[in-house]
Amino acid sequence: MTRPLPSAVVSDLSEIVGRRHVITDPDRLLVYESDGLTAYRIPPRAVVLPASTEEISAVVEVLHRKGVAVIPRGAGTGLSGGALSTPGGVIVGMARMNRILTIDPENRIARAQPGVINAHLTEATSPYGLYYPPDPSSQSACTLGGNVAENSGGPHCLKYGVTARYVTGLTVVLAGGRVMQLGGVGRDPYTTLDLVGLFVGSEGCFGIATEIEIRLLPITEGVRTLLGIFESVESAGRAVTKIIASGLMPAAVEIVDGPTIQAVEASVFAAGYPLEAGAALVIEFDGTEAGLDLDADRAEGYCLEEGAIEVQRATDPEHRTKLWRARKKAFGAMGRIAPDLLVQDATVPRTKLPEVLAGIDDIGSRYGLKIANVFHAGDGNLHPNILFDRQNQKELELVERASKEIMQLCVDAGGTITGEHGVGLDKREYMTLVYGPAELQAMAAAKQVFDPASLFNPGKVLPEVEGAELGVAMKASTVS
Amino acid sequence: MTRPLPSAVVSDLSEIVGRRHVITDPDRLLVYESDGLTAYRIPPRAVVLPASTEEISAVVEVLHRKGVAVIPRGAGTGLSGGALSTPGGVIVGMARMNRILTIDPENRIARAQPGVINAHLTEATSPYGLYYPPDPSSQSACTLGGNVAENSGGPHCLKYGVTARYVTGLTVVLAGGRVMQLGGVGRDPYTTLDLVGLFVGSEGCFGIATEIEIRLLPITEGVRTLLGIFESVESAGRAVTKIIASGLMPAAVEIVDGPTIQAVEASVFAAGYPLEAGAALVIEFDGTEAGLDLDADRAEGYCLEEGAIEVQRATDPEHRTKLWRARKKAFGAMGRIAPDLLVQDATVPRTKLPEVLAGIDDIGSRYGLKIANVFHAGDGNLHPNILFDRQNQKELELVERASKEIMQLCVDAGGTITGEHGVGLDKREYMTLVYGPAELQAMAAAKQVFDPASLFNPGKVLPEVEGAELGVAMKASTVS
Repeated sequence: MTRPLPSAVVSDLSEIVGRRHVITDPDRLLVYESDGLTAYRIPPRAVVLPASTEEISAVVEVLHRKGVAVIPRGAGTGLSGGALSTPGGVIVGMARMNRILTIDPENRIARAQPGVINAHLTEATSPYGLYYPPDPSSQSACTLGGNVAENSGGPHCLKYGVTARYVTGLTVVLAGGRVMQLGGVGRDPYTTLDLVGLFVGSEGCFGIATEIEIRLLPITEGVRTLLGIFESVESAGRAVTKIIASGLMPAAVEIVDGPTIQAVEASVFAAGYPLEAGAALVIEFDGTEAGLDLDADRAEGYCLEEGAIEVQRATDPEHRTKLWRARKKAFGAMGRIAPDLLVQDATVPRTKLPEVLAGIDDIGSRYGLKIANVFHAGDGNLHPNILFDRQNQKELELVERASKEIMQLCVDAGGTITGEHGVGLDKREYMTLVYGPAELQAMAAAKQVFDPASLFNPGKVLPEVEGAELGVAMKASTVS
Repeated sequence: MTRPLPSAVVSDLSEIVGRRHVITDPDRLLVYESDGLTAYRIPPRAVVLPASTEEISAVVEVLHRKGVAVIPRGAGTGLSGGALSTPGGVIVGMARMNRILTIDPENRIARAQPGVINAHLTEATSPYGLYYPPDPSSQSACTLGGNVAENSGGPHCLKYGVTARYVTGLTVVLAGGRVMQLGGVGRDPYTTLDLVGLFVGSEGCFGIATEIEIRLLPITEGVRTLLGIFESVESAGRAVTKIIASGLMPAAVEIVDGPTIQAVEASVFAAGYPLEAGAALVIEFDGTEAGLDLDADRAEGYCLEEGAIEVQRATDPEHRTKLWRARKKAFGAMGRIAPDLLVQDATVPRTKLPEVLAGIDDIGSRYGLKIANVFHAGDGNLHPNILFDRQNQKELELVERASKEIMQLCVDAGGTITGEHGVGLDKREYMTLVYGPAELQAMAAAKQVFDPASLFNPGKVLPEVEGAELGVAMKASTVS
């Protein structure tokens, strides 16, 4: 049972944001109990929905004065439990911070509030011939603030890079409600002691970004989308290696494996893929119209050389959408064949994909778990999806053990435990697979630069370790 | 007079690196008294030249145990006094750390020591069809370690981004000789609490990067280089705005102003530019061969619309080199017409270029100083070059005052005091023009994450401020 917030605090918060924007009713709080990773559920004591930097600052001031932890939350689409409350914490939601503040086409910069939905930024800037490249699969729902917190990626980040490449300035609310400006001017991160880059990807553990300055890119003239159907993930993987090694620079290279194809084809999203296919490879090129057909021809050649059963090329925007369908709708389709789905996220060197995928397959067999893979092959960013039934306690345990083995496998291959979903609550115990005490202590110290008393999103990202053990390395940063 | 290093320390260091790699002879130390910004001269107590991570770690351990400050140094081409000793400090030079350790073409990654010269990395990777995009004007001399320290840019960073976009992993030696691994795996910065991104641009104030993992890009198929000659910088600037606003994505957009053209034409680097020209605009496109002529045609059209006197297009690699000459040789040419040159570095929003350039012109007139401009117009990254004679004490003072006014002008235009040269010793007093006490304290705290006792490159980047004043905000990070 969650301890309710004292009425004096509720009244202080209500004075700032209005009573109806302070949610304390347990029924209304239900929706905030989990994020996109529904395996975890922790009810917050309250949810506050401010509408300006000033309100956020005042809300944080009140809560921190009372020693209450603040959990920033965007759309809650995250897949690592990062936007989940901590016991006794209060969620500060960005739903009302949803305005695009300025679009400056001449300098190719926009400034937006964190609650703006990712896809809306591109919608708003496209009349100026500009767009925002990072495109998480959840882009029609997830928000810029969440993207900043998780340093989100997406299929086209192979060519265009993840969120950190586009954020050039931030207004942030820090511990106790202090407001700080970081960066600005619109170029790549160029500053000395780059605090913007540090803040991006900090998963709500440093503070709340309340205004985000973003570099935009000109919309590319043309696009070519290919779908290759392969007998096996291995042959699709070899085609990827050939394409990348050839010097081609695709905007996206995505693989959908056999089990995922079968799930998609059995669903309302059926795209007409052959059911016996071992893998589908989606390749996209963009840029100046003139060179695209040549690029697509070369990529098609490499697919056929590696034994592709067929290669389709999109003939119009609708066809393009269809070719992308299995990739985009994979998670939805899998939801139909199993009650629960754990979407994992890890990155390995691209050349290690075949061996890691074989290893994941083996882990699935050993635990008797169905694992389907949909992933950003060009980036080596894997998304193994474990299908299970949460009601089955034994299966739930197997999922946890398999998950950890997959992470270990990726780390052993020279990879890491996250690619674009962050660490959150789900993967913080895996941090020690990658980082030693010194690195973890440095991260803890970096958090303390912004949030010395650990009042922002505590219990996320950094694993619990003996304070003593880590304390030796960097005394200077110990919480006072 | 510099206090020599105690002989016991010299002997400890000699045991690690060999006596001939510990420089204590005042004559040999002379060359280390300044970096590319020769206005400042501080002799180090000694220079040590280790040859491995282990040696660097051991050297730092010895020096820090004695409380001696360590100043990491690459090729010393920096232009902000960042690689300068601090009084009583010892320079640890990277001249012997000059090996490319691995080139992994399939994953498009290289791992190199910090003393590798920037241009050598591209030379070594070009047989694999790969290159390293950041291209500082000093790229034939400057080193990767220095690039990491300064988060260096270059003409082609308009399209390809600065150093931070390419560094994905670092081995670093921190305070007391501790070795730490940051990042890895070759994708864009993807980690939570991105310590790699924080370290890049830390100007040697955090520690020494001893191995650098770098993403490489495939060499582009084709290139088109244009040179536009304009009557004034203003008309060249308007052409830039039109080109960028049109959605074209040039690889580089550089402006060389009239005074610079005159200096170049009077030098051995003469490129045949008309002496009466007010500005030369170098525009380059790269990418798939097929689309390039169209891009170049469009850019040429915009130049002519804005009153270009003529537009040349490179017909072969030699011609391309010639068109770039005034840009690349500008600093050398100016050296011929004045004994001393102060190359400044600041960034403003691209659309503010005309007003800021007019303001710089006005500052030059008021102080009676000759100021020539060569700059990355596409990025809004200005390089005003003040010509002077150091022997003239009064002129030296005017240069300092004019420099500060230029910085204030750029900041007032919404810009910042650095673009790619770092802050170093030269611009740390200007930091307060851009940052308030809270931001500066956050930066100081970030330094303390890595270097709690401030033994790496002290006195650089962060201005001296009352400790008390800044101490309040973030107690947790105070040096113990």
